[in-house]
Amino acid sequence: MDIHALTRELHTKSDSKIVLLVADGLGGLPMSAGGKTELESALKPNLDALAKVGVQGGSIPVCPGISPGSGPGHLGLFGYDPVQYLIGRGALEATGIGFPMEPGDVAARGNFCTLDADGKITDRRAGRIPSEESAPLAVKLREVKIPGCQTFVEPVKEHRFVVVFRGPGLAGAVKDTDPQTTGVAPLAAEATDESSRQMADVANLWIAAATKLLAGEKKANGLTLRGFAARPNLPSYEEVYGLRAAAIAVYPMYKGLARLVGMDIVGQAGALAEQMTILEQHWSKYDFFFIHFKYTDSTGEDGDFPAKVKKIEEFDAAIPRVVALKPKVLIVTGDHSTPSYLKSHSWHPVPTLLVSDCCRPDGHTTFGENTAVHGGLGQFEAKYLMTLALANAGRLAKYGA
Amino acid sequence: MDIHALTRELHTKSDSKIVLLVADGLGGLPMSAGGKTELESALKPNLDALAKVGVQGGSIPVCPGISPGSGPGHLGLFGYDPVQYLIGRGALEATGIGFPMEPGDVAARGNFCTLDADGKITDRRAGRIPSEESAPLAVKLREVKIPGCQTFVEPVKEHRFVVVFRGPGLAGAVKDTDPQTTGVAPLAAEATDESSRQMADVANLWIAAATKLLAGEKKANGLTLRGFAARPNLPSYEEVYGLRAAAIAVYPMYKGLARLVGMDIVGQAGALAEQMTILEQHWSKYDFFFIHFKYTDSTGEDGDFPAKVKKIEEFDAAIPRVVALKPKVLIVTGDHSTPSYLKSHSWHPVPTLLVSDCCRPDGHTTFGENTAVHGGLGQFEAKYLMTLALANAGRLAKYGA
Repeated sequence: MDIHALTRELHTKSDSKIVLLVADGLGGLPMSAGGKTELESALKPNLDALAKVGVQGGSIPVCPGISPGSGPGHLGLFGYDPVQYLIGRGALEATGIGFPMEPGDVAARGNFCTLDADGKITDRRAGRIPSEESAPLAVKLREVKIPGCQTFVEPVKEHRFVVVFRGPGLAGAVKDTDPQTTGVAPLAAEATDESSRQMADVANLWIAAATKLLAGEKKANGLTLRGFAARPNLPSYEEVYGLRAAAIAVYPMYKGLARLVGMDIVGQAGALAEQMTILEQHWSKYDFFFIHFKYTDSTGEDGDFPAKVKKIEEFDAAIPRVVALKPKVLIVTGDHSTPSYLKSHSWHPVPTLLVSDCCRPDGHTTFGENTAVHGGLGQFEAKYLMTLALANAGRLAKYGA
Repeated sequence: MDIHALTRELHTKSDSKIVLLVADGLGGLPMSAGGKTELESALKPNLDALAKVGVQGGSIPVCPGISPGSGPGHLGLFGYDPVQYLIGRGALEATGIGFPMEPGDVAARGNFCTLDADGKITDRRAGRIPSEESAPLAVKLREVKIPGCQTFVEPVKEHRFVVVFRGPGLAGAVKDTDPQTTGVAPLAAEATDESSRQMADVANLWIAAATKLLAGEKKANGLTLRGFAARPNLPSYEEVYGLRAAAIAVYPMYKGLARLVGMDIVGQAGALAEQMTILEQHWSKYDFFFIHFKYTDSTGEDGDFPAKVKKIEEFDAAIPRVVALKPKVLIVTGDHSTPSYLKSHSWHPVPTLLVSDCCRPDGHTTFGENTAVHGGLGQFEAKYLMTLALANAGRLAKYGA
């Protein structure tokens, strides 16, 4: 079901505010059966106080058993079906480094490589050239000009960079030019559908000119492009929900994802306390705030159970400043679970807490994985969280008479 | 959503083993409100011990309120959408008697009937001719040869048999030849789409020759064909999950269903203990084992509550031998509920238990219908069980970056 077909038609104007607090990778696991999870182990008086007046549920990021990356994880939370709206590799890479892709843009991941005198690849990663050597080369590639098409090149790390093509008639169905082996020349860019022909032509012109510019380099005298992808065509928060939305995030990836759905990126936060200050400063200007907290995920990825517990406690300590603003709807969740036990993203339902004056509290007095899956929201696909938020905010009219 | 589009892309190699223990018709009902179900009444220390370290859920075979037959019940458990992948009657009948249908084969259910001198049906079931009289007649029909097409005839029971057509260009959209009444001749086989024309022509040739062979029989001097159906085109376990899968089943139907998804049928088991021995013998050769226990269903169908309780206890006693093999993932479930109270398959969620080191235990200490629906897996469509199994087995990569 296309939930946006409903929200587009039903959303109404209101002054109510919604806050979506995302603790990345919030859900966890006990280190052994019978134990507690990170969230259950944390001292979190503020979240527990919210649990008493809120309703919990287990948010399933994609579908049972599927562990999402940050892209599909956040799209789901934002209310976009993460299978329907796939963000291609190139577009995600550009998004992840904070490049503001526009509709129609096509991005590709670039690799510097080493070519021999015959133009054949001898090293697909240019000897893993260090970033301080490769970044100036990426910047140099900005000199390449293709008629009728703007190009943007951004360094990433070591041998990697991103190139974004902007112009009329471009599309992303273009094969990788990386032959995945050495001893052969890079492949020509080749369109796999009619509408991507022009993109392939532009890419080949750009590659030829860029390779000429790199001539004389010892390590990085060639390049390949992979993962061509157009900016996904996501309808905006304004359009589907009628929300003026702001994102308060630290890392480029999450700012980028928020930008893709039309959120404004506000403030230049470093720490959580700064994010709270930015929230307070922008409170009157937006209807919806997405606040992203990274460190519950990174400590989970490190497999550091006590550190993740500590980060949850830090996150908890910031809650009163959000509550003090009296949002009509406050949601605490994660884009996926990142159990320290697995040191990776996982498929487990994410403990999710929704507080509003009309949320039908479920009687739980603490917030955790096992209270969540037995909570009043049950287990639900993440993509329905936004509909629940709008409903609790009094921002959805009745469906049908 | 086509879950196999995800699993096909995401499955990874691993040494981990998955065991799917299916107690057919496991779920039940109390005989009166407030009472216990068969599973809740059974003394089942081994299942209860697993409950303490596992996570439970209620598996919905098709969708709420729909009671499945064995075909859709098992397809769901195997991870195939039971509405998308329908097994036609003829193909299910052939599968059920253990006939190994190949891709492109078309099967039909045959009925012997009695014809009068004018070729009109006087008895649609040939006087319910006993199996010992009808089986030799079915075997005799193997003499019928149709150019360009192989045919296979298998006796079933009383007036029933199965015929399978094998050859190029056959398809299953052919109407029944049984007029569903007496006093008229059997109908000609008639295709309902262009691609089934040849099948109808072959069927008519076969029917004419077969009827000639039966001339002189007193009861069974004619026949009708019903439920033409091609072998369903199910992608294999190897393809969609990357699993080398083995089935350890006693009854032909379940072996047949397993064969349809590409499982190897291993061993010649009679009792559950023999199935366990076969499991032990084949442990190193496969990634996935489907073990089918029939008697929880048959006792339920008989409406024999105490007998079903006893069969559950028998099933429970076999658990330690599975646990001793240390599968990475152990699942206990049923293909549907068969409450003794209803004496039939039912729609109720099937108590399902999943045990792995990363399953997020839900704190239950016994296994039963009411713990299951309040379990950590919640209520879920059966088709997601395989995705959960793969995830818990560490056999699925992250979706998206």
